[in-house]
Amino acid sequence: MSILKGMRVVEGSAFVAVPLAGMTLAQMGAEVIRFDRLGGGLDAGRLPLAPSGQSLFWAGLNKGKKSIAVDMKAPEGRELITRIVTAPGDDAGLFLTNLRVRGWMDYESLSQHRDDLIMVSLSGDRHGRPQVDYTVNPALGIPDITGPEGYPDPVANALPAWDLIAGNLVVSSLLAAERHRLRRGVGQNVDLSLKDVAAATLGHLGMIGDAVVNEAPRSKSGNALYGAYGQDFLCADGQRVMVIGLTDRQWRGLVEATGIADEISGLEARSGRSLREEGARWDLRHDITAILAPWFAARRLADFAADFDRRGLTWSVFRTVKEAVAQDPDLSTDNAMFRMLHQPGLGTFPVPGMPATFSEAARNAPVAAPVLGEHTEEILSEVAQLDDTEIAGLFDRGVVADHSSLQGRAA
Amino acid sequence: MSILKGMRVVEGSAFVAVPLAGMTLAQMGAEVIRFDRLGGGLDAGRLPLAPSGQSLFWAGLNKGKKSIAVDMKAPEGRELITRIVTAPGDDAGLFLTNLRVRGWMDYESLSQHRDDLIMVSLSGDRHGRPQVDYTVNPALGIPDITGPEGYPDPVANALPAWDLIAGNLVVSSLLAAERHRLRRGVGQNVDLSLKDVAAATLGHLGMIGDAVVNEAPRSKSGNALYGAYGQDFLCADGQRVMVIGLTDRQWRGLVEATGIADEISGLEARSGRSLREEGARWDLRHDITAILAPWFAARRLADFAADFDRRGLTWSVFRTVKEAVAQDPDLSTDNAMFRMLHQPGLGTFPVPGMPATFSEAARNAPVAAPVLGEHTEEILSEVAQLDDTEIAGLFDRGVVADHSSLQGRAA
Repeated sequence: MSILKGMRVVEGSAFVAVPLAGMTLAQMGAEVIRFDRLGGGLDAGRLPLAPSGQSLFWAGLNKGKKSIAVDMKAPEGRELITRIVTAPGDDAGLFLTNLRVRGWMDYESLSQHRDDLIMVSLSGDRHGRPQVDYTVNPALGIPDITGPEGYPDPVANALPAWDLIAGNLVVSSLLAAERHRLRRGVGQNVDLSLKDVAAATLGHLGMIGDAVVNEAPRSKSGNALYGAYGQDFLCADGQRVMVIGLTDRQWRGLVEATGIADEISGLEARSGRSLREEGARWDLRHDITAILAPWFAARRLADFAADFDRRGLTWSVFRTVKEAVAQDPDLSTDNAMFRMLHQPGLGTFPVPGMPATFSEAARNAPVAAPVLGEHTEEILSEVAQLDDTEIAGLFDRGVVADHSSLQGRAA
Repeated sequence: MSILKGMRVVEGSAFVAVPLAGMTLAQMGAEVIRFDRLGGGLDAGRLPLAPSGQSLFWAGLNKGKKSIAVDMKAPEGRELITRIVTAPGDDAGLFLTNLRVRGWMDYESLSQHRDDLIMVSLSGDRHGRPQVDYTVNPALGIPDITGPEGYPDPVANALPAWDLIAGNLVVSSLLAAERHRLRRGVGQNVDLSLKDVAAATLGHLGMIGDAVVNEAPRSKSGNALYGAYGQDFLCADGQRVMVIGLTDRQWRGLVEATGIADEISGLEARSGRSLREEGARWDLRHDITAILAPWFAARRLADFAADFDRRGLTWSVFRTVKEAVAQDPDLSTDNAMFRMLHQPGLGTFPVPGMPATFSEAARNAPVAAPVLGEHTEEILSEVAQLDDTEIAGLFDRGVVADHSSLQGRAA
């Protein structure tokens, strides 16, 4: 049995954060219903695409959900969404959204239909202005500290890190509010913004304090591990590796594995610093790198990989995503988290389930994303509790659509 | 009242992910007890530091927790940790860790003392090998797609994104398992690894599918928004801005605000592509950028900022972290999430609370991190339920320490 079996969550969303939240809940066993307008959400065609033109992105972030397509411009469509969001059930009445809808879709309106509703809303910033991962990040200064030392321009993250963190906080917030409801019987409105998530994280990592109390806070440091020792090196065979000397144990292991103890002693004597201090390793990182670089340049990966592993060093090779997918068993069905899924229009590739395993719950196999409108009829019947005549009327009036009627429209 | 008021969580941790998880629970109102060895954890001195030499990082990630310092090499110290982790209480028996301790600190041993224990363990990878954010990231290929187009080398994230995501998943997993225990009375062991979190995320974002089904998956694209339009521009006054045309609405707004409709029509005619399609905006991003660059180069930020805001464009300036802290009200006490705290040894600066606000719970003001061992006596008395004589004996035998005795040791 899944850990969240029986919970029902409704999601009105687009892009990364809230879809990820709903998908995470679905992978823990909740029934998650995503509603979209008839043509699909704002993220329906988001890249990357498969050769068919269908979105691999959408399929990835909406795995295991149920999909209903509704004309939300029609009053009847809005009533329907309201009915689905506020449908009865002890473990229902849970709504996630990042759509900016004032009026019928806000907490005040929806909670009139179910007073213990829990609604979690993610906005761009606390002022209600539109912000996305790609604007929050430069506003807070991360691109300024990303990239090679001395590189003149800011460098953006390739990963939508803030969206991913915010989506996970949406999950935590929902579960915390639902815990409160289980104990006290009251629902609530939960608000958070992407920019606040990012701003709080900067504070948690000590970067706000660093900027206030230090003259010269952190700047670009290339691929170095910030604050201790960690660096990338090119090997004789063109492979690049990352080696870590963050903890004392890691550092000693690295020094021993590469046989540089004498050079390190020399550097300590010259500098008057003990490299057993992580701050000294950071300050003297270029000197340490100069000692290590010839060692790696003279060796192929195969010359030291097994020894590094045997010694328990913390290290890794650099790969492209394509190489990682082709070569790393952790990204294959050798890893029980992955399952090979054939998804029509997309292809066959390893699809991940929930990274956490629960000893009292079976590992849920990942389930493919729905086709837009795939569950329209089922949701109208089972959740909105409409009868066949009512459902037929909604289809006839074009208020809802299912997969086959949407295919007809598109053709 | 806080949303998680009454919950008690014990944390044995270091670095980012698990400390962040405990801190997030503390900021939602849980009592979180972090235990460390007498000299402090592996992360006690992690950079950034204040001029005093104290860690801003540690203070940021351990806010609002209680601290106990215990000699875990002594059998008595291990018994004590076991007693604290498994102490009675309906809302207790919750343990988070990323320490690799086999034997007395694993689930099998601890659950013998409390059979409904919930333990969430984060490891490096599923094989038990040591991995950190800085090694997981290159192994999965993110540095290969980060950085300027054509830049020859991989570029690491400055942000420990995987740690931050994993820490939030630790919170979700704990809350999901505790929900299960509330309903069914059973605890459990929850395992996840940093590398699996990252591998799953790659899949969720469609990147594994992209690598498998497409010949040429995503590569470096500088500061461009991947998959639609978004780009950074230098203005006449040296300011740099990021502008977004991800959705149709954002794109139309950008075209109108900059008055480039005619040039865009010309580009559409020349290319035979409609730029109302996000994929066409991505394919033709360099052409769009060439049209927009002179517009920004001819203007100062102040010439267009108010108009962009009035039109509701999604955009931002680039800042350094120091500039952001100095200039952006969202990173100041103008934002109710922040509170100005004076922390001895660190300084006075804005400290963030929980980004989510709960309508049924007061916003918790952030609370500073403890000093190592600050709550040793309180925890021994109230959680381990030892009497004064037993507590005095533990101090005398050096099994535990509090702040004053640790200061004595250090001197």
